[in-house]
Amino acid sequence: MAYPTELQGRVDAYLSGLRFSAEPGTAGLEEAMRYSLLAGGKRIRPVLALATAEALGREPSELLPLAAALELIHTYSLIHDDLPAMDDDALRRGQPTCHVAYGEDVAILAGDGLFAEALRLVLERQTGAPARVLRAAAELVAAAGVDGMVGGQFLDVTAAGDLDAPGLRRLHELKTGRLIGAAVECPILVTGETGPATIALRRFAAELGVLFQIVDDILDVTGEESTLGKPQGSDERHGKRTYVSVFGLDRARELAEESHRGAREALSGAGETTQTLARITDYILTRQT
Amino acid sequence: MAYPTELQGRVDAYLSGLRFSAEPGTAGLEEAMRYSLLAGGKRIRPVLALATAEALGREPSELLPLAAALELIHTYSLIHDDLPAMDDDALRRGQPTCHVAYGEDVAILAGDGLFAEALRLVLERQTGAPARVLRAAAELVAAAGVDGMVGGQFLDVTAAGDLDAPGLRRLHELKTGRLIGAAVECPILVTGETGPATIALRRFAAELGVLFQIVDDILDVTGEESTLGKPQGSDERHGKRTYVSVFGLDRARELAEESHRGAREALSGAGETTQTLARITDYILTRQT
Repeated sequence: MAYPTELQGRVDAYLSGLRFSAEPGTAGLEEAMRYSLLAGGKRIRPVLALATAEALGREPSELLPLAAALELIHTYSLIHDDLPAMDDDALRRGQPTCHVAYGEDVAILAGDGLFAEALRLVLERQTGAPARVLRAAAELVAAAGVDGMVGGQFLDVTAAGDLDAPGLRRLHELKTGRLIGAAVECPILVTGETGPATIALRRFAAELGVLFQIVDDILDVTGEESTLGKPQGSDERHGKRTYVSVFGLDRARELAEESHRGAREALSGAGETTQTLARITDYILTRQT
Repeated sequence: MAYPTELQGRVDAYLSGLRFSAEPGTAGLEEAMRYSLLAGGKRIRPVLALATAEALGREPSELLPLAAALELIHTYSLIHDDLPAMDDDALRRGQPTCHVAYGEDVAILAGDGLFAEALRLVLERQTGAPARVLRAAAELVAAAGVDGMVGGQFLDVTAAGDLDAPGLRRLHELKTGRLIGAAVECPILVTGETGPATIALRRFAAELGVLFQIVDDILDVTGEESTLGKPQGSDERHGKRTYVSVFGLDRARELAEESHRGAREALSGAGETTQTLARITDYILTRQT
């Protein structure tokens, strides 16, 4: 099934409309933030959030501020991960990375700014009962914090070469899985849903995070640079352990199939409005970038 | 009058008790975060928040999560400002800066982590009606974002040498003033106070931010390195325009006296429980570090 480009279009339109700087002096900062934010990409996290709203019987557009916040946080993490002191990557989505285009100081601040503005979106613009918005915002920052994305990136830069298989899985749960999970969890919290469908959706989110990372590792080895938009084989050059380096390419592909089946099975327990989530799941298994 | 060390002690005790990492793998990240967070300092922002609660007739301890969040955000900004790509400072509060002690990659992540964990404190632990906590959290991230701290730091690294006097004032309003202001504004929002005292307190906060920055610029020129804990004259070496470089030392001192008078006058309109705020104001004028 095809990726839900209709939801992606709504996300892209919303992101394009965002402005961050209220005065001329900081227009250059906003430019660097928008440069990275609007560089393309499938918008998997926000599309996942909108599709989760749909699965819960809500109008997806109600969740746009929260959905956009997920993409701002993802973009901030990419900008900081690409810095010379981290992965030192010069290319991202076929474009010079933020620090190459705007300088390292501006790139650090563009990342910092995107994180702050992501939270402003949720806290100022997300509709819903205040207690629910508060819980969703708390989940979002937890997913971005030490027990989430930042902690996972710390493991990646300090320990990735020495991890065993469970350690590797944990690294990716934190670095990637928590924010993918938040894309499902935060809409559940904002809507206040508590039924059995939410249990199935949470199980789905956990499997999807694993699937996403395995495919990412496979693409780093098999992908074409022109399609990936970044140098192929960068994990290996950085001495990182990946699903491919630990299990081999064939077994990694089997593991991806298993996670895909697990995610689809979980969805089947989450009701009849999960077709869009199923399309995202299929896309993640078969994606080439 | 003496600085309110009693409130400072409560802040220090609360900060020391904070833990950020739930697992062994990220203990090194927590260590770097705590290294910078617990390096000392007067805790002006959180003490200001607690004293504002007191001025509003509340128990200061109720505001500790929010107060601590202000210090975490301040610490995160110092860590990122000190990075080689920014101010490239090797010494802070008499200790090696975070990137010197832990490496640049870990320092970037320690800053990122402190920002996320600051917001978790407010969203998960700050008591109060959810709608009020939400508004206070929104004010906090706005003060930290593009129209606040991050925007001010952007002006500082890109334009500080070319600014005229109003531009310089705007830089510091964003970089320092907004977070100092938030230390007064957020407690007002959490408590839900709307009386005339809040108008006076907001005027006080604006003057205090200016006072703080003028004194900072004076100390950069006149301070002793052993007391400052960082190299003296660093603004001049970085080619930064300051209140001293624009107005001269004598006029800068007069401006500090004027702001101090303005802040004390504003307080006199905010009721009879503002003694602690007055002590903080006096301390900021006469501080040596």
